[in-house]
Amino acid sequence: MARGKRAVNQGESMKNTEEFPSIDGPRLVAHLEQLGAIGLREDGSCCRLALTDEDKAGRDLVVSWMRELDLEVKIDRVGNIFGIRPGSEDLPPVMSGSHIDTVATGGKYDGCLGVLAGLEVIRTLNESGIQTRRPLVVGVFTNEEGARFQPDMLGSLVYGGGFSVEDAWRAIGTDGAAFGAELERVGYVGTMEPGSMVPSAFVELHIEQGPILDLEGGLLGAVQNLQGISWQEVTLKGMPNHAGTTPMRLRHDAGYGAARLTCFVRDLALNIGDTQVGTVGFTHLSPGLVNVIPGEAVVTVDLRNTGEDRLKEAEDHLMAFLHELGQQEGLRISTRCLARFEPVTFDPEIVSVIEAAAESLGQTVRRMTSGAGQDAQMMARLCPTAMIFVPSVGGISHNPAEFTKPEHVELGTNVLLRTLIQLAR
Amino acid sequence: MARGKRAVNQGESMKNTEEFPSIDGPRLVAHLEQLGAIGLREDGSCCRLALTDEDKAGRDLVVSWMRELDLEVKIDRVGNIFGIRPGSEDLPPVMSGSHIDTVATGGKYDGCLGVLAGLEVIRTLNESGIQTRRPLVVGVFTNEEGARFQPDMLGSLVYGGGFSVEDAWRAIGTDGAAFGAELERVGYVGTMEPGSMVPSAFVELHIEQGPILDLEGGLLGAVQNLQGISWQEVTLKGMPNHAGTTPMRLRHDAGYGAARLTCFVRDLALNIGDTQVGTVGFTHLSPGLVNVIPGEAVVTVDLRNTGEDRLKEAEDHLMAFLHELGQQEGLRISTRCLARFEPVTFDPEIVSVIEAAAESLGQTVRRMTSGAGQDAQMMARLCPTAMIFVPSVGGISHNPAEFTKPEHVELGTNVLLRTLIQLAR
Repeated sequence: MARGKRAVNQGESMKNTEEFPSIDGPRLVAHLEQLGAIGLREDGSCCRLALTDEDKAGRDLVVSWMRELDLEVKIDRVGNIFGIRPGSEDLPPVMSGSHIDTVATGGKYDGCLGVLAGLEVIRTLNESGIQTRRPLVVGVFTNEEGARFQPDMLGSLVYGGGFSVEDAWRAIGTDGAAFGAELERVGYVGTMEPGSMVPSAFVELHIEQGPILDLEGGLLGAVQNLQGISWQEVTLKGMPNHAGTTPMRLRHDAGYGAARLTCFVRDLALNIGDTQVGTVGFTHLSPGLVNVIPGEAVVTVDLRNTGEDRLKEAEDHLMAFLHELGQQEGLRISTRCLARFEPVTFDPEIVSVIEAAAESLGQTVRRMTSGAGQDAQMMARLCPTAMIFVPSVGGISHNPAEFTKPEHVELGTNVLLRTLIQLAR
Repeated sequence: MARGKRAVNQGESMKNTEEFPSIDGPRLVAHLEQLGAIGLREDGSCCRLALTDEDKAGRDLVVSWMRELDLEVKIDRVGNIFGIRPGSEDLPPVMSGSHIDTVATGGKYDGCLGVLAGLEVIRTLNESGIQTRRPLVVGVFTNEEGARFQPDMLGSLVYGGGFSVEDAWRAIGTDGAAFGAELERVGYVGTMEPGSMVPSAFVELHIEQGPILDLEGGLLGAVQNLQGISWQEVTLKGMPNHAGTTPMRLRHDAGYGAARLTCFVRDLALNIGDTQVGTVGFTHLSPGLVNVIPGEAVVTVDLRNTGEDRLKEAEDHLMAFLHELGQQEGLRISTRCLARFEPVTFDPEIVSVIEAAAESLGQTVRRMTSGAGQDAQMMARLCPTAMIFVPSVGGISHNPAEFTKPEHVELGTNVLLRTLIQLAR
């Protein structure tokens, strides 16, 4: 379908025969490259940790694009940025958006796609002369990755009412800097109260960051829910001893305990099945020498499920296993909760609108679950919310090899455009 | 038995009725404390890494004691120190000794006991006016611990002919310094050719560094063999991926592979049984983040057995397991040998002399295996060799809590005295 000014049916339905403008895929990809060049490193990865100089440069670029599009730019007290396009009526807006901060070795798509696709939709509507009934807003949330400040999804969490501005300002980064001081330093302390603009709907376009859509041949995803997350840090204390002189029966080997725990987490996920996943991503053994039985091990356990009851069941099984392991091996085992989010169910009506939008483009979508935490889960506290996923080649993200094909960038953004028009009617 | 000059039967037998002088236990313990004060740190540990300023200060103290005892001091080309007491005949000497270098957080007994007990025996013989037929030598071997330079047991390995002086000089320390340059810096480059003085027998007194003697109520040990050691570094390569979005069935989790390997090593040691031990002391996961499936794991495997055939069997089982694991989990697994020593069988006659010496003191000894590597295993390449073990409280060593009770220090040294007298007849 050609771009350009044309009439659009602002009615209730989204028929295959209805005409919508199409976004400019190459232009959007060029903008992704332009933003991705800020913080680019030699290995091709992108490092724009939240509230660093690189993040400021990224924010400045995005705000300049918002102003080019005649959007009203508002910034709230935790640095979330909103570009607002008025509607024909003074109603609660329809919001899209995501984040532009990255992990230390990030890619060009995670987060950025959701922000720049939102701007591309508005650019297309501007060029097409299309006025929506509700205002359209593109949000850029602060510190989604949590790679510098904890908790992750901090900006949207505050916006959704789950964390105070004061607590956010006090958060200390991995480099020892305070969130509030860094927000002031980069000049992104706004006056808007987080959560004060309540949207009628929120839709986030994001890369899948997993392999499913790519493996299934490049489908799009209509994300209907989001896994609950339980992160535990487990510390196992045994007795460090000489690896040569300590008989097997006299050992209290914290490293063996860590290994048993790691195997248990795999078995637990397989036994619960369905959407349950479980991962040990971090293990540290002390003293960590080839010829010393580890006296201490620290292990992280990441459990996720779309059902709160089953997630709790997984946590209970884990605790029972640790109790038994401690007894069997003579280990003192303690746990510390690092993060806990309940599963989120997205709005079924918005999921249906996304499906219909894709269908009107001749695409089938896969209803699916987000395994990653997203700003959308925090916005779901405020308003009906859902997400659109586009495939990630090889399921890779948080990596310079993160890549989504241009045709999927374009297709996902056209689905976003139709979804936003429908919701803003 | 009182100390002092007395006649000693220099005949073949060691009867309970024969009179021997006794060493001065408190004096020996005071010397251990005096040497242990060099490199002492706030946490009570001792840090005399080989060829550092602290090691030099320790060497200078030991050499001053040798000179006080009228010993001839010879130093070889890798810094091994020998204090020589002439015999009544010009025969190959009987040697005892050990090392005085420590790990970074060492104790006061490991190594030092063997050196200072040897000197205490000579001090006692000097005071008693006892002349042995063969010369007696106390050796101090360079860099036994391997905490600064690889390989460990470097001085005795060169002395025993297993490594060249040139290769030793080229060894680079963990701090980047070269062995040869550091040996020159501390002034311990000698002219003696390593291995040129071949003893008729070598006996090393050492703390057990394991829990067996302490658990059995403080027996002494007559060490009849020494475990073979096989150290492997195993690298497992999988696919790093998002912990939330990657279904269990699509994972190639290097951390899970490392855990399976760790559990296998335990099972392997239990299945082979007897003297077999197996330890995973080091595990490193990359990228090592709570929410990323590890893409790479590096694990060390320490296998030991007194029998070369069974040690090879253990290594073969390990390789077969790794092959199977790689296939099951889609991991690329490689191994690198970090160290390999064949088991050593000590001289049965010397072990019998040690038993008889203990028996003549009213003590029973336990025939046992050394699970740790020792200078004695390198000297066994040159001459009949065995070891005497004294208990380590709690089996602890390489730790400020390393402790051997004064009565065991005294008893072990009296056994050494009687053994050396018998061997030097």
